Amino acid sequence: MSSNVEAAQYDPQNVFAKILRGEIPAQKVYEDEHTLAFMDVMPQGPGHTLVIPKAPARGLLDADPASLAATIRTVQRVARAVKTAFAADGLTIFQYNEPAGGQTVFHLHVHIVPRFDDVALSRHTGGMADSDLLGVHAAQIRAALAAA
Amino acid sequence: MSSNVEAAQYDPQNVFAKILRGEIPAQKVYEDEHTLAFMDVMPQGPGHTLVIPKAPARGLLDADPASLAATIRTVQRVARAVKTAFAADGLTIFQYNEPAGGQTVFHLHVHIVPRFDDVALSRHTGGMADSDLLGVHAAQIRAALAAA
Repeated sequence: MSSNVEAAQYDPQNVFAKILRGEIPAQKVYEDEHTLAFMDVMPQGPGHTLVIPKAPARGLLDADPASLAATIRTVQRVARAVKTAFAADGLTIFQYNEPAGGQTVFHLHVHIVPRFDDVALSRHTGGMADSDLLGVHAAQIRAALAAA
Repeated sequence: MSSNVEAAQYDPQNVFAKILRGEIPAQKVYEDEHTLAFMDVMPQGPGHTLVIPKAPARGLLDADPASLAATIRTVQRVARAVKTAFAADGLTIFQYNEPAGGQTVFHLHVHIVPRFDDVALSRHTGGMADSDLLGVHAAQIRAALAAA
């Protein structure tokens, strides 16, 4: 269907592509040859972190399998550090595809959200988090990664 | 911490382990050496499918990296088929860790939920879906996989 073909196109002007090119800043927590992890600027709670592949992909369906494997490896590594850094009781992982699936930035990304007993998941408020606070959180996660 | 060590234990009596051993039935859509995909019996909508690794893992954090890579590969493959089979506009992927993170069955699993424009995500009702209907849905997804 033409609408699906259209939907599968990658727009290199999306904000995560700009972060990868260094055109806009991000509070980074981890980077390797194939992936980057950084703080979500509209977090659903302290420690909400995103992992993206460096290779262009709009979402799960069009990702190169090797890039996807690298992404999930980084998700596991960063998720462990997020859980430690925020002393979380659990973690919820989200990955959204297309607007109907909840996607708002059209570069494949995986959400890592620390969760706590008896605390409901908060929604994206649409508001931007304080950049300095995100910087502190990123440093906490980097410290947990370094100690792992 | 002792509570974390305790939480990381794998209980081979969980229902997905029983499905893997053939002790209880499931509406299967895909199986390979390392992974299995089947219909969620408490779906958040038609086509809600689960992917699990065959290797024991409680969640994301304790999974063997190779098993995790095989799991995400199957998630991608099955997600494409789910989207096709249900003519979905998008897909939402969930992966829950520990009760605080939303986990209720303690064998690593990834939820694939087809999504449609202007339709909010429904919650798990806690009710069991009709097994025959799940069988029809599984057959639709298997057909999409076979045609891929």
